[in-house]
Amino acid sequence: MAMHQREIEIETGSSPGLADLTRACAEFLADVADAGDGLLTVFVPHATAGVVVVELGAGSDDDLLDALERLLPHDERWRHRHGSPGHGADHVLPLLVSPSVTIPVVAGAMTLGTWQSIALLDTNADNRRRRVQLAFLAG
Amino acid sequence: MAMHQREIEIETGSSPGLADLTRACAEFLADVADAGDGLLTVFVPHATAGVVVVELGAGSDDDLLDALERLLPHDERWRHRHGSPGHGADHVLPLLVSPSVTIPVVAGAMTLGTWQSIALLDTNADNRRRRVQLAFLAG
Amino acid sequence: MAMHQREIEIETGSSPGLADLTRACAEFLADVADAGDGLLTVFVPHATAGVVVVELGAGSDDDLLDALERLLPHDERWRHRHGSPGHGADHVLPLLVSPSVTIPVVAGAMTLGTWQSIALLDTNADNRRRRVQLAFLAG
Repeated sequence: MAMHQREIEIETGSSPGLADLTRACAEFLADVADAGDGLLTVFVPHATAGVVVVELGAGSDDDLLDALERLLPHDERWRHRHGSPGHGADHVLPLLVSPSVTIPVVAGAMTLGTWQSIALLDTNADNRRRRVQLAFLAG
Repeated sequence: MAMHQREIEIETGSSPGLADLTRACAEFLADVADAGDGLLTVFVPHATAGVVVVELGAGSDDDLLDALERLLPHDERWRHRHGSPGHGADHVLPLLVSPSVTIPVVAGAMTLGTWQSIALLDTNADNRRRRVQLAFLAG
Repeated sequence: MAMHQREIEIETGSSPGLADLTRACAEFLADVADAGDGLLTVFVPHATAGVVVVELGAGSDDDLLDALERLLPHDERWRHRHGSPGHGADHVLPLLVSPSVTIPVVAGAMTLGTWQSIALLDTNADNRRRRVQLAFLAG
């Protein structure tokens, strides 16, 4: 029994977006899980980003970003006024999106559905590089 | 130390709704936890469904479904256009609702509060059967 | 390999708010983790409260509470009519906010980012004391 852990870095660029983490998670498990069972936790150590499990592509990425902008607009309403205009919205992102997701691993593979990808959600244009923690606790 | 895992199937029918998973989780733990401690992860391997922990009944189920429909309406706004009209909304569900929840288990029992139930949230009328992964990592 | 568990009590008062749990989590780990690795799950066993990981201060607390009130208003729309006026909104909180978050622990310390705090989110004015479960599963 042991926990394995890896920190990765993701270039998220200067516009809001989703960055696919699925391959990085699979590579991490290939290196450490040794075909065993356990729990994988994906955690983003940033207050203005989150982790989602979604179908990427077919328009859904932009649908998700549009819905988020409608629910938490980058406008002048926010008390938090550091950074770019509307950046206060990024600090409320964790109301809707957790920085953490935990996925069962069976025989070294995540039990993701066919259409599920793990993605970093980052609407913060001021921060172009993000760290992500991968942790696998073996059973 | 070991991980125990079970996949269950849930009939969710053809209208949006919440399906109670609490009993299935308790039965799983009764079979595998042997009155021990650990973490239970409930994970739905579908991109258009999620897991919530809520009070079921007393009107709250319909309140939750109404609020969700107001926040992510099944209308014509979505780029994703496969499936039933408005189905694009189902693909944005993971913005609000994670497919995963982890609950501490002490002496073989979930530490749920009196009014908490674990429920599968499925607004996707096109998919009437859902799989759910239960994973218990013993301490 | 073992799971360590602690239940703490938090005074949340009679107005909606965020209560910082970060220090209580760090103290728990200092007592039990013995500088080891593992997963920390923070779970609130109440149907009308949740756990978020946010930057506290700089106006973001009130921004978050305002956004939540806009998305789930304490008005007369809800079927659930027990408790204070608008209390039905509190029962829909778990649509947006999970009662659970899991954070990797490395060498006895949470892998939180610089600006991240773990906070109990409670909009329910009728319940002034809340329990929180802390569980550490060592690797």
